[in-house]
Amino acid sequence: MNNINFSNITITGGFWKNRLDINRDVTTVAVKNRFEETGRFKALKCEWKEEMPNRPHFFWDSDVAKWIEGAAYILRQHKDPELETFIESLIDDIEKNQHKSGYFNSFFLTARDEKPFTKRDFHELYCAGHLIEAAVAWYETTGRDRFLKLMKKYSEHIAKIFMDEESADFDTPGHEEIELALFRLYRCTGEERWLNLAEFFLNRRGSSEKDLHCDQPEWMTHSYNQSLYGIRSQDTARGHAVRACYLYCAMADLAAERKHDKALRSACEKLFYDITHRKMYITGGIGSSHAGEAFTRPYDLPNDTAYAETCASIALAMFALRMQQLSCDGVYADTVERTIFNGILSGVSLGGDSFFYCNPLELTPHLKDKDNSVRGNSRNWQPATKRAKVFGCSCCPPNLTRFFASLGNYIYSENDGGLYINQYIPNKLDNGKKAAEISTEYPKNGFVKIKADGYSFIALRIPGWCSSFSINKKYTMKNGYAIIENTAGEITLDMQMRPTLIQASNLVTENCGRAVMQLGPVVYCLEELDNAAPVRALSVNSELSAKIEYDETFSANVIYADGFKLCGDDNKLYSEYTGKKEPVRLKFIPFFAFANRKESSMAVWNRVN
Amino acid sequence: MNNINFSNITITGGFWKNRLDINRDVTTVAVKNRFEETGRFKALKCEWKEEMPNRPHFFWDSDVAKWIEGAAYILRQHKDPELETFIESLIDDIEKNQHKSGYFNSFFLTARDEKPFTKRDFHELYCAGHLIEAAVAWYETTGRDRFLKLMKKYSEHIAKIFMDEESADFDTPGHEEIELALFRLYRCTGEERWLNLAEFFLNRRGSSEKDLHCDQPEWMTHSYNQSLYGIRSQDTARGHAVRACYLYCAMADLAAERKHDKALRSACEKLFYDITHRKMYITGGIGSSHAGEAFTRPYDLPNDTAYAETCASIALAMFALRMQQLSCDGVYADTVERTIFNGILSGVSLGGDSFFYCNPLELTPHLKDKDNSVRGNSRNWQPATKRAKVFGCSCCPPNLTRFFASLGNYIYSENDGGLYINQYIPNKLDNGKKAAEISTEYPKNGFVKIKADGYSFIALRIPGWCSSFSINKKYTMKNGYAIIENTAGEITLDMQMRPTLIQASNLVTENCGRAVMQLGPVVYCLEELDNAAPVRALSVNSELSAKIEYDETFSANVIYADGFKLCGDDNKLYSEYTGKKEPVRLKFIPFFAFANRKESSMAVWNRVN
Repeated sequence: MNNINFSNITITGGFWKNRLDINRDVTTVAVKNRFEETGRFKALKCEWKEEMPNRPHFFWDSDVAKWIEGAAYILRQHKDPELETFIESLIDDIEKNQHKSGYFNSFFLTARDEKPFTKRDFHELYCAGHLIEAAVAWYETTGRDRFLKLMKKYSEHIAKIFMDEESADFDTPGHEEIELALFRLYRCTGEERWLNLAEFFLNRRGSSEKDLHCDQPEWMTHSYNQSLYGIRSQDTARGHAVRACYLYCAMADLAAERKHDKALRSACEKLFYDITHRKMYITGGIGSSHAGEAFTRPYDLPNDTAYAETCASIALAMFALRMQQLSCDGVYADTVERTIFNGILSGVSLGGDSFFYCNPLELTPHLKDKDNSVRGNSRNWQPATKRAKVFGCSCCPPNLTRFFASLGNYIYSENDGGLYINQYIPNKLDNGKKAAEISTEYPKNGFVKIKADGYSFIALRIPGWCSSFSINKKYTMKNGYAIIENTAGEITLDMQMRPTLIQASNLVTENCGRAVMQLGPVVYCLEELDNAAPVRALSVNSELSAKIEYDETFSANVIYADGFKLCGDDNKLYSEYTGKKEPVRLKFIPFFAFANRKESSMAVWNRVN
Repeated sequence: MNNINFSNITITGGFWKNRLDINRDVTTVAVKNRFEETGRFKALKCEWKEEMPNRPHFFWDSDVAKWIEGAAYILRQHKDPELETFIESLIDDIEKNQHKSGYFNSFFLTARDEKPFTKRDFHELYCAGHLIEAAVAWYETTGRDRFLKLMKKYSEHIAKIFMDEESADFDTPGHEEIELALFRLYRCTGEERWLNLAEFFLNRRGSSEKDLHCDQPEWMTHSYNQSLYGIRSQDTARGHAVRACYLYCAMADLAAERKHDKALRSACEKLFYDITHRKMYITGGIGSSHAGEAFTRPYDLPNDTAYAETCASIALAMFALRMQQLSCDGVYADTVERTIFNGILSGVSLGGDSFFYCNPLELTPHLKDKDNSVRGNSRNWQPATKRAKVFGCSCCPPNLTRFFASLGNYIYSENDGGLYINQYIPNKLDNGKKAAEISTEYPKNGFVKIKADGYSFIALRIPGWCSSFSINKKYTMKNGYAIIENTAGEITLDMQMRPTLIQASNLVTENCGRAVMQLGPVVYCLEELDNAAPVRALSVNSELSAKIEYDETFSANVIYADGFKLCGDDNKLYSEYTGKKEPVRLKFIPFFAFANRKESSMAVWNRVN
């Protein structure tokens, strides 16, 4: 399938229009301000010297590049000459300071004595990848190719060092990203050399003695950065979740180019299956472990210490989008939907100016800030209970801005002359001779109207959560899509949306006897402040009597349902079991909206009685 | 109250006789063999040189001393000339290598270049304390005072360095132990100078600039080793649980000597209350955190990552025994009972030759050995699932041998001419003019027969777990004891013992909706191998229909009760909640017996339906 680029799409209203306006008007500005305060933009001037404040970090170029990429997407649909001029000034800095070889990295060019490409975990190729993505986005937005040329020059240098001369101290990057960026450069320019370079990095992985013996931090294993196996032998998701999924994205990109490579496609499918069937939170969060920000064992999905980095959920959506290129199966868009309404969206506050790095599924403030008698102790790690305006490792905020600004990419694909509708976001598509329009209040309700011109059929994804729906036309089901041949006039899809309790596999031991409230694609949680009790004392009545109410604060439905509150004496550490509980009316709010008010205990998985 | 020393007591049968025979015949021998293999005994010869195997560790003297102390207790009631000769040979080594100043530490005298008493966390005073305890025990067993004299000489040296000259680089030990050992030396010799030295160390704590600024590992806070506050200002249990409770033992010892010191007594009471009402597992395990082996926040009692070191439960029993000196209240012996039948006893295998350092309340083997991508990662720490024959930090095994060999200390106390019976262990007491005898199969059942001569009254502890009992004599209740004035003839106490579900405070969030099966003082658990299902899929029927059956394997009752097993599809990560469960008959085994067969999932706290 070919995914349709958001450039041809105007999002016209509803849930996402509201969020994307906040992304443009608040989040992008807030991130810009933080980057100015912390010296990230200034670092591009390469004027930093020892003992000056704001020592550059080796990942700063990537932060800035992601922000530029997001801003470029915003400018594509929203003029802002001041923003445009500002970005051109950043490109001036890059142009001025790019080494004559083509190399550019503001950290190595200023704060660092070592030679370039000697430290595998110092993110040079990762930063290069993000700069390339930013340059492609800038070119596609403005039509001006200055930035693109600079990054092509850098890419030529990388090809020379890594592919032609093999003179770097490692063969493949410690943090993947360059691979998928080179696919974008290839697709933008049509120049096969970038495809070849991406393919080179991918095929080199797992077979490089240099990578296995290069200098990297002692705690880092070869699983951590996916270096143990060749890409066609990788069948279980391992290591740092963002790195892993960026690699898997590029693997899927390559599989789409090299259709004969069945082993590669099979590896991609196994990895996607392993993640979504064994290692993914119900929110679409992945990488459950704080240690290594990493995947661990199948079904190891603790709620209170969930790492579930925002960037990792974004990377999973990116991977799913690319898997969709390989086969028309609704499971990929289902996974995208799970992430965008839950584990990605929870990464930013409702107001748009503060961020979660981690997205836990349970908060217990009274057990936090442990009375630790061990300094610098990360062994009792607990996620933050409040979103922060700024954090040192600021990968997530600009990843959010660029992701939301290009959310339109996830709506449509085309195949065999048909139009596949993957996400129900109100929009107008104008794809040259073809056009389409979606109107809906989704996920407030499950009613969607679709018009389309010029397609031989329309395929509507019937989400995994949806067990009952009706369509005003004849359709046949195929791989999670309702295929409609008669595309004339308005198509209406009515998905029955009711509060539903979801259970986990018993292998997720912590969730045995618990359930999640879900309404359509939105996962719900209990917060103490709505329920006048620590959430762990609450349980849901298994005979669900739920009521939905639209709540303006969250621009979404809240759910009221019958439940119980334990009546034990909190002051008695141990006493004879009474099981005494009193009926209460529970209020569930969308998970994405948690921790937007006062600090409160919160739980996604709640006991059922 | 005066606790009666076990020397006057012969344990005659029942549950503990069996365990203590194993402690003598198997455990003490197994620990001796391990110590021989690892060079711990040989280290006393102070002949170790660089590049030889078995480099001594700074805590090795304490391991050996605890083992000697245990062996001395065993020899007091069981002749073994070979064992006695072996210990004399160890004393030969100590005598031969003791520095002329009186100093003795096999690590500093061989493996270490630094001057003595320059590193606060290098356990010199801790080792000294254990050597003093061993010397006292040896003297009391054999009547021979050679070892005692050596340790008195060492104690004189310590008094000179720390109290007279203040020439050490710190003022109080980083690991407490010397304080309570000096109380034992004082009580054995009647020499007040040891009481004074103990008091000096105790009063110095929390007011020493040297201690706050001495060289200690970077991760170690002043909370970790109880150095922030003076002893009379310590009212919440903090830091390393063993260190803390050894300190609290000595504080209680001092409070017993200095009866006017109300502030000290109050601090002891507050600490005991804080531990037993907010920071203790139902098994008597304390120190819930792997990081720092430490106390954390109130109610922070996770089951699967419970540290609950065996030594810490022993230290809690020791603290409770000393608190009993301060007031006739059954709560202290209740706590002792909780530890000896659960969190201490679980530290050794049924066979007696392998050991747990940590005593978790839940095991999930399929989530263990995480697919960690971080080397040396202790951030995903999980306790061992099997007892080990040997471990590097071998504090627990010899602590168990000396504890069990002197278990008789916990049975009786005297006060005001009356005899207090704290633990129901079959035994004969011959206390000079007074005598007593207890016959019982406890905890197999709650029936106890008592005879006593020469006491003005008998006080029987009615355990906290017991809600219904009868006594064949008139009695009045006082602070958890049934006081019987008419001591003539046989007294029978019949405690009704029935399987009971216990709940935790809702503040222990993980245990909300769960309960523990308890029978008398014994805490029970489910193991997968008895129940053909991962234990988390099981729940207990709240309408308890339990049956007790005596099991020879465990020398204890097992319990059968109705319950349920979740019927979800383990392969579906998420699916609509059905709550489907089938009735099953559950088999509970004593917690102390867990992990004695095949590796299995295990849980103490189970859901109730």
